[in-house]
Amino acid sequence: MMGKGRLEAFSDGVLAIIITIMVLELRAPHDATLQVLVDLKWVLASYILSFVYIGIYWNNHHHMFHATRRVNGAVLWSNLHLLFWLSLVPFATAWMGETHFASLPMAVYGGVLLMAGIAYYILQSKIIREQGENSLVARAVGGDLKGKLSPLFYIVAMPTAFVSRWISGALYVAVALMWLVPDRRIERVLAEEQPVAE
Amino acid sequence: MMGKGRLEAFSDGVLAIIITIMVLELRAPHDATLQVLVDLKWVLASYILSFVYIGIYWNNHHHMFHATRRVNGAVLWSNLHLLFWLSLVPFATAWMGETHFASLPMAVYGGVLLMAGIAYYILQSKIIREQGENSLVARAVGGDLKGKLSPLFYIVAMPTAFVSRWISGALYVAVALMWLVPDRRIERVLAEEQPVAE
Amino acid sequence: MMGKGRLEAFSDGVLAIIITIMVLELRAPHDATLQVLVDLKWVLASYILSFVYIGIYWNNHHHMFHATRRVNGAVLWSNLHLLFWLSLVPFATAWMGETHFASLPMAVYGGVLLMAGIAYYILQSKIIREQGENSLVARAVGGDLKGKLSPLFYIVAMPTAFVSRWISGALYVAVALMWLVPDRRIERVLAEEQPVAE
Amino acid sequence: MMGKGRLEAFSDGVLAIIITIMVLELRAPHDATLQVLVDLKWVLASYILSFVYIGIYWNNHHHMFHATRRVNGAVLWSNLHLLFWLSLVPFATAWMGETHFASLPMAVYGGVLLMAGIAYYILQSKIIREQGENSLVARAVGGDLKGKLSPLFYIVAMPTAFVSRWISGALYVAVALMWLVPDRRIERVLAEEQPVAE
Repeated sequence: MMGKGRLEAFSDGVLAIIITIMVLELRAPHDATLQVLVDLKWVLASYILSFVYIGIYWNNHHHMFHATRRVNGAVLWSNLHLLFWLSLVPFATAWMGETHFASLPMAVYGGVLLMAGIAYYILQSKIIREQGENSLVARAVGGDLKGKLSPLFYIVAMPTAFVSRWISGALYVAVALMWLVPDRRIERVLAEEQPVAE
Repeated sequence: MMGKGRLEAFSDGVLAIIITIMVLELRAPHDATLQVLVDLKWVLASYILSFVYIGIYWNNHHHMFHATRRVNGAVLWSNLHLLFWLSLVPFATAWMGETHFASLPMAVYGGVLLMAGIAYYILQSKIIREQGENSLVARAVGGDLKGKLSPLFYIVAMPTAFVSRWISGALYVAVALMWLVPDRRIERVLAEEQPVAE
Repeated sequence: MMGKGRLEAFSDGVLAIIITIMVLELRAPHDATLQVLVDLKWVLASYILSFVYIGIYWNNHHHMFHATRRVNGAVLWSNLHLLFWLSLVPFATAWMGETHFASLPMAVYGGVLLMAGIAYYILQSKIIREQGENSLVARAVGGDLKGKLSPLFYIVAMPTAFVSRWISGALYVAVALMWLVPDRRIERVLAEEQPVAE
Repeated sequence: MMGKGRLEAFSDGVLAIIITIMVLELRAPHDATLQVLVDLKWVLASYILSFVYIGIYWNNHHHMFHATRRVNGAVLWSNLHLLFWLSLVPFATAWMGETHFASLPMAVYGGVLLMAGIAYYILQSKIIREQGENSLVARAVGGDLKGKLSPLFYIVAMPTAFVSRWISGALYVAVALMWLVPDRRIERVLAEEQPVAE
């Protein structure tokens, strides 16, 4: 049983680096023409998509640990497991951008997101087991519809990438938009619980 | 309603990485001659300008959240939106340096700064809405002259870059200098409010 | 005698960067074929191994400082010494991956791990000296079997790399697995000591 | 007047990145021969020297702000000014390593260290002005012999680099060793002041 401070700080550090090093793929062209800027559109599109995804993960991570009191070894390692899959996002993003959203890289991108989603689910389960079924976290997560829908979308989007990259891409965007709609569950439960929280 | 600690920590992380990876553009030359050092002058100039800009954003961000008590989902996402535009600063900086401050990169640089300025304004508005019109933040921001002048400068500097890169560059420097003059508004209001704050 | 907060924060930052920059070696290929993905297997394998090692170090560092009350100059520098050796892990990892686990890079990898292990031992000793032989840390570390076995494994694995890279690699994996088994020592002692810790 | 928490966190982030990105210069060779490892000796030597210097700055920064209660705008900007010069250390280090410690890069290295030393002195003065001449910081800094000697060493080492790179290098090493000897001044004063500090 330990405080959660360093887990949050380390995760913030890793997520901040992941979200920022992706921009290194946007390499400064030698020419100053409009064409070179237009040519960057694929890399830029893949960067924006992944920036939103990492932002969503940071946001959800923030909410989940806000409702968490203590962490144990299983939580620490489940968190590192999640960070491992998220650390592959910059690679998948760069490959997708570099190849102008080719089929295989798009499928790999979905595979990395799927594994990150599973890792998040494992982390959530470990926290709930640690905190108890009646804990703030357990009630806040509730039915967790989004958490269950997202993997389905990824599983559909992966093979679809070999048929139409537009449909596959649309599915990835759809999941991101679904999460961008603010997740008020935890905020609501927290508000009920502690009207003057923190 | 959540504490602001992790938002600050994550933003600090991203801003620290942004401000530091720009220096990677200063690549170590193979030769040890004075000429190669002189050739770096464009890259160095663009680095200094952007270092100051990111420093200003960090400073203002620090002040604004110092006067903020709680954050909600809208604030979290507005903050990520700001970080997104700031994350493009290293690209725009590198392109400007690489092309010796050519017209198009200079205009793009202004565009990124303009979007970051708008994102900051949105973030500020979300915080004030959350904290209330009579809050510390709302009164501290006050008329926000600088926040209103900066976009005007960027909007003028962008097309000007195609006429004279010196005038355009001078406008970017002018905005930076305007902000470098210490922003005592929030410090003053805080001092009035809580004489022994923190 | 100082608080341990900044030492933890700085170490978290350095470890977060180390664990994340290793992924930069996974460079996005230009082609979108399965072959280029298969070709990355060596780099990916070396990345996974080192991710786990850095994760273990972060985990142990977290536990050790959780049981530490104060730090002095000797602890600060012993910590920097540890971070120095860990900062060489990305280089050794990349070299090992790049050369498809060739003998010399594998031996160098073991050498870096050995030095990091020694540095960790020195750090632990400095903390115990500072906290006293009856302190939480001293009792939590106890016999420290893993800490004594790991260097032995490295010392065997280094020359073995010139005989069989599979045996050498298996030894590195064995050490990692040994540590992945949760280290309950400090958690246990902490639980006995402070039932409602933090 | 604000808390010092975020200034410390941001500085920790920037220093952690500076100290870590320098290792990126240690690029993994394609060959697995002893020769390529030997060829890295210059880059490794420059890395070790700069790692120690950044470690010293972090250490001193840690001590100084530990004795600081509040910060104002002048301190924030003096701190950013210090971070600017330190952010040039990776460039100077890489150039020095890349050119096998050639004269001009060695002189530039000294110039960057000199400017960082001056920036540190300015920062220290701003903090003392803010805290008062009788503050903990003011008394802890005291005569500040090391702070006065270091610039002298740099000023001598810079032109000397064009005569003998060994003497110049020895001077840089000498300054680092001088600081590595634990700076007990602030620890001592703090111990007198608050026997059970933090």
